[in-house]
Amino acid sequence: MDTAGQVIKCKAAIAWGDHKPLTIEEIEVAPPKANEVRIKILASGICGTDTAALKGKLGTKFPAILGHEAIGIVESIGNGVTTVQPGDKVIPLCMPQCGQCRACKSPNANLCDKNDFTNNTGLMQDKTSRFTCKGKQVYHFVGTSTFTEYTVVSEISVAKVDPAAPLEVCIVGCGFATGYGAAVNSKIAPGSTCAVFGLGGVGFSALIGCKISGAGRIIGVGSHKDKFPKAIELGATECLSPKDNDKPIQEVIRDMTNGGVDFAFECSGNIETLKTAFESTYIGSGVTVLLGVAGPNDKLCFHPGEVMMGRTIKGLPYGGFKGRDDIPKLVGDYMANKFNLNFMVSERMPLEKINEAFELMASGKGLRNLIIF
Amino acid sequence: MDTAGQVIKCKAAIAWGDHKPLTIEEIEVAPPKANEVRIKILASGICGTDTAALKGKLGTKFPAILGHEAIGIVESIGNGVTTVQPGDKVIPLCMPQCGQCRACKSPNANLCDKNDFTNNTGLMQDKTSRFTCKGKQVYHFVGTSTFTEYTVVSEISVAKVDPAAPLEVCIVGCGFATGYGAAVNSKIAPGSTCAVFGLGGVGFSALIGCKISGAGRIIGVGSHKDKFPKAIELGATECLSPKDNDKPIQEVIRDMTNGGVDFAFECSGNIETLKTAFESTYIGSGVTVLLGVAGPNDKLCFHPGEVMMGRTIKGLPYGGFKGRDDIPKLVGDYMANKFNLNFMVSERMPLEKINEAFELMASGKGLRNLIIF
Repeated sequence: MDTAGQVIKCKAAIAWGDHKPLTIEEIEVAPPKANEVRIKILASGICGTDTAALKGKLGTKFPAILGHEAIGIVESIGNGVTTVQPGDKVIPLCMPQCGQCRACKSPNANLCDKNDFTNNTGLMQDKTSRFTCKGKQVYHFVGTSTFTEYTVVSEISVAKVDPAAPLEVCIVGCGFATGYGAAVNSKIAPGSTCAVFGLGGVGFSALIGCKISGAGRIIGVGSHKDKFPKAIELGATECLSPKDNDKPIQEVIRDMTNGGVDFAFECSGNIETLKTAFESTYIGSGVTVLLGVAGPNDKLCFHPGEVMMGRTIKGLPYGGFKGRDDIPKLVGDYMANKFNLNFMVSERMPLEKINEAFELMASGKGLRNLIIF
Repeated sequence: MDTAGQVIKCKAAIAWGDHKPLTIEEIEVAPPKANEVRIKILASGICGTDTAALKGKLGTKFPAILGHEAIGIVESIGNGVTTVQPGDKVIPLCMPQCGQCRACKSPNANLCDKNDFTNNTGLMQDKTSRFTCKGKQVYHFVGTSTFTEYTVVSEISVAKVDPAAPLEVCIVGCGFATGYGAAVNSKIAPGSTCAVFGLGGVGFSALIGCKISGAGRIIGVGSHKDKFPKAIELGATECLSPKDNDKPIQEVIRDMTNGGVDFAFECSGNIETLKTAFESTYIGSGVTVLLGVAGPNDKLCFHPGEVMMGRTIKGLPYGGFKGRDDIPKLVGDYMANKFNLNFMVSERMPLEKINEAFELMASGKGLRNLIIF
């Protein structure tokens, strides 16, 4: 049946508010307007940012369809769309690439002006929604909304990928890009010492990036010790649990590394862990990269002298990658076996089990649970 | 008279405690021990760090001989000294370069383990002093102590410079290196927008560094508007005073620069100005460089999201220069007219007027007052 131009009725997981379970509902998905693309979702990962949204950390507008780490097939395109066609395999991009704004034109930035992390409209670029449920408008989430059988995104928020790409490459679309890119785009000199705080999907991706960058020593730091063997397999040279040490873990790390690591990647979003990561770096040149999503009232506080002597604190949103340019290349690298992704996939579950998938992730047992449509 | 091996009696300005005026006293300067150099000081600048020490911001041990931005002639050398000889013109280095420690061996760091900013012993490397006054030990300051006719420093804390170098190159030894280096070692892409907060000696040096780096727009920010013409002459394309604007100056700057500057150099040491500088940078890739010395209880606090989206906060102590390698080259650049320094010299005064020189600097009227011996 040709659905182009038609409203599609399908199933979606609706988030009605923060700290509320999602419910599976029938929704209506309007056809794509000009410069928009409607996508049939094949698989979607659940990322820490979805959890953060559900915890109310991001000021997300509800009711919403969350999800931003997916792979799908273009169902139809709106007027003016030239870069993808129906039938193309695509990854929706929570970090768009309009090509026109300051960040898109800069070699050193990727925070596209059209991104909805910072704009936080919960809407398409024309400030309307394509979703309704029971007669009411449902908000989009960071320009993607992938916990649904069909979604609509802007053309600037979609990357065309290899048609042979398997479902697990959805992870490249956020968690993997974020962690891996933070490492490979941080110009880690071969032989450097690195520490990765928080051994979830982003942290594991950062470990892989550190290893590929030629880091000499890679310390995984986490409280779930059952993840240590996997961390070692992926590139960590050793793992530490704060629970196993009487001394603060930053002191342990500084003692182990002649004054601190060259690079610390904070992937947990816990503000105390962020302080610990910062204090684990070498005062004369250590770099702390912020990846985890902090709570709305969290503050990082330090005496300026802690940075003035040579430290750096920085952000590399989306791992510093430009979505439309770089995500297809990363998928190509995966297809060429440059890195592994299957390790990240703990369970493959149907949409109906999405609350269970969130709970598994919160328990620290799984890395990524993929919703398979 | 050959003074080598002898105790030298001479005049020095003694700082007896924080917030107390210096007094000119006769002191005894012991001969240099092994790997030490005794220097007859020709001229010394007064830097903001000396002021910070006198305000008790640095935990300085008193009584002390302050001063760390000087030029002099080697009077005698201790055993084992091979890189300078009596008669050499030298600049004492508040950031030593031992060549052996982690920072000295790294291409990305310069915070030598032997520096006394962070160690704060107030002593030579063997943990003793070479100064006495009225029978009591007087502390050294950051391994230099230049408010005296003669001082003793470690060989690792001295840079041999062109014998023809004029007295004003003493400024290269700290203030100029710090500001200029923070800019030229920050990899400013040509055409970038920069803002310099605090139009003192360090800030003016940063303006010069921004201009030499090819910055397209350089905004000087300060509250002493009489300094604006000089700032413009040195490289600022425009100057702003927070007093002239109803809106917070960071908003004014963001509005002027399509979302914020690429680089902000904070040279005032005022914690509120530091926050302002940070908030003046572009959220997607702006870099804040911390140069000013903050108070002991100051804290920079921000939500991690303010950095996570792409900003960087970093320190480049001593402008990122390695003292023994780079200071002679900077002096050579000055001798080759690559940059000007005379603009920085407001007054040349005898040691007896050192309190007046501090007051002039505090009033914001002078940039650098040189003590001429």
